Amino acid sequence: MDTFMCEFCQIINKERTAYIVYEDEKLVSFLDADPINEGHVLVVPKEHVDSLDKMQDNTLSDVMSVSKKIVKALCEIYGSDGYSIMQNGGKFCDYGHIHFHIFPRYENDGFGFTYPEGSFEYSGVVAERLKKKLTDTNI
Amino acid sequence: MDTFMCEFCQIINKERTAYIVYEDEKLVSFLDADPINEGHVLVVPKEHVDSLDKMQDNTLSDVMSVSKKIVKALCEIYGSDGYSIMQNGGKFCDYGHIHFHIFPRYENDGFGFTYPEGSFEYSGVVAERLKKKLTDTNI
Repeated sequence: MDTFMCEFCQIINKERTAYIVYEDEKLVSFLDADPINEGHVLVVPKEHVDSLDKMQDNTLSDVMSVSKKIVKALCEIYGSDGYSIMQNGGKFCDYGHIHFHIFPRYENDGFGFTYPEGSFEYSGVVAERLKKKLTDTNI
Repeated sequence: MDTFMCEFCQIINKERTAYIVYEDEKLVSFLDADPINEGHVLVVPKEHVDSLDKMQDNTLSDVMSVSKKIVKALCEIYGSDGYSIMQNGGKFCDYGHIHFHIFPRYENDGFGFTYPEGSFEYSGVVAERLKKKLTDTNI
């Protein structure tokens, strides 16, 4: 019986091609197939998890260490005005396999965000709830 | 003569108020004043730098370790469908002080991205250039 393997796991296992720019024992980085700007890459831990809180600290450190280098490389290659890093988790994690987007940005390049319309609870209440939760031993 | 201090440095130095949810020796986390969704926080290293490649690896590890906890706390509090983490660097780093956005997300909540229109070079060329740059000893 075939075991399900997500597209990113297929790339990691060399069963699907991608434009790989970096690889080591724990992670791989390749071009996003639908780039926001030229040079848009994904940094992908080899372990198949769908959210940050399921990642091991040392893998996460490695992802960030490589991301630092990629940011520097992209800014040097493209002379961009800056960059963004983005990681969408849970239901917003495409392919169900965690990945970090890194892409160069330019002033007035058209990249931006659309905001939800919503009214939120008083900030003091929100902050207290979160602060308390963060002292929870299970977090 | 007064030394310039950015708004985030003022918060860190307790010269400006914010809804702080977490603080330790190297970083502070407080509510975003203009939240995308309720529970939107910023994780802010105390050192004033404007981009990822200027951060020290151990501080970056700490930021990620705390971010993991915040992701878990937010998802537990709000039962959200997911979350996003975002870090905008260079000219897109508001206040010139690096910060990581973390906010809960919900299906069809209206949050989204607008994409630049652009044509990009052949991916094979882009990948080779970046791959080569990443082997540069100065990166």
